[in-house]
Amino acid sequence: MIVRRAIPADVPAILRLIVALAVYEREPDAVKATEESLTQSLFNDRPHIFAHVAEHEGDVVGIAVWFLNYSTWTGRPGIYLEDLFVSEAARGTGAGKALFKALAEEADARGCVRIDWAVLDWNTPAMDFYRAIGGRPQLGWQPWRIDGEALEALRS
Amino acid sequence: MIVRRAIPADVPAILRLIVALAVYEREPDAVKATEESLTQSLFNDRPHIFAHVAEHEGDVVGIAVWFLNYSTWTGRPGIYLEDLFVSEAARGTGAGKALFKALAEEADARGCVRIDWAVLDWNTPAMDFYRAIGGRPQLGWQPWRIDGEALEALRS
Repeated sequence: MIVRRAIPADVPAILRLIVALAVYEREPDAVKATEESLTQSLFNDRPHIFAHVAEHEGDVVGIAVWFLNYSTWTGRPGIYLEDLFVSEAARGTGAGKALFKALAEEADARGCVRIDWAVLDWNTPAMDFYRAIGGRPQLGWQPWRIDGEALEALRS
Repeated sequence: MIVRRAIPADVPAILRLIVALAVYEREPDAVKATEESLTQSLFNDRPHIFAHVAEHEGDVVGIAVWFLNYSTWTGRPGIYLEDLFVSEAARGTGAGKALFKALAEEADARGCVRIDWAVLDWNTPAMDFYRAIGGRPQLGWQPWRIDGEALEALRS
């Protein structure tokens, strides 16, 4: 198992795993990203989104897509893990933990004091894994969003 | 009421409102950011954190501290609103909505399709305001975190 920063040639595999994650999260049609949009987002001159891949015998079996966030309380940046996914065939091989370890190293190198992410509240296998590596739910905090027509209306 | 991008001279007022927000959120000692760290984060050569201020009669009465996030589902960046706060004296003057409107314009200019943030689950006045401007809770999603010793352990 090798974990490394993604390269442009990984994009088709990354998109495949993003779609597999959406299917797992019961939103099979949610993914609007394309190979082109991912390539542009991850590999432009000043990307603000990054990806690591876990590779096994030449195949990409896991992905972590992340960006930097910031906390006014700590006064420091952090890593926000947008997507973590390991293909079904590769579960239990340590790929998820290896991806988290790579992010922890990345966090250290960048002066980040934490890694944040979100999980669906029915996804207990994921939560068991997160707990096992030292993660904990941020109880009391509720995510909110404004998008679509409401966002447009706000602008006008 | 004027809403504008923050300038270095706003940092003392921004920090004061960050601390006031922490007090409001019942974590009065949570803020480790300093004027120096905020200046460095907001006004370096390639900042990834930004701030808007709402100004009334020359005083900064509200702040929005934000950064860009990303969604693999939309394939697009978004705005994450880390801190929104309006001083108690200025509540009900439209400062909060004016700050959101400025972020909606910023989102449009940057090709962002949504604004995300988090709220404490007892903060019903804030939720009422968010609902009134078209926001909605992202039910089912639970924020998680790894930091401190657990993050260090993961690295080793």
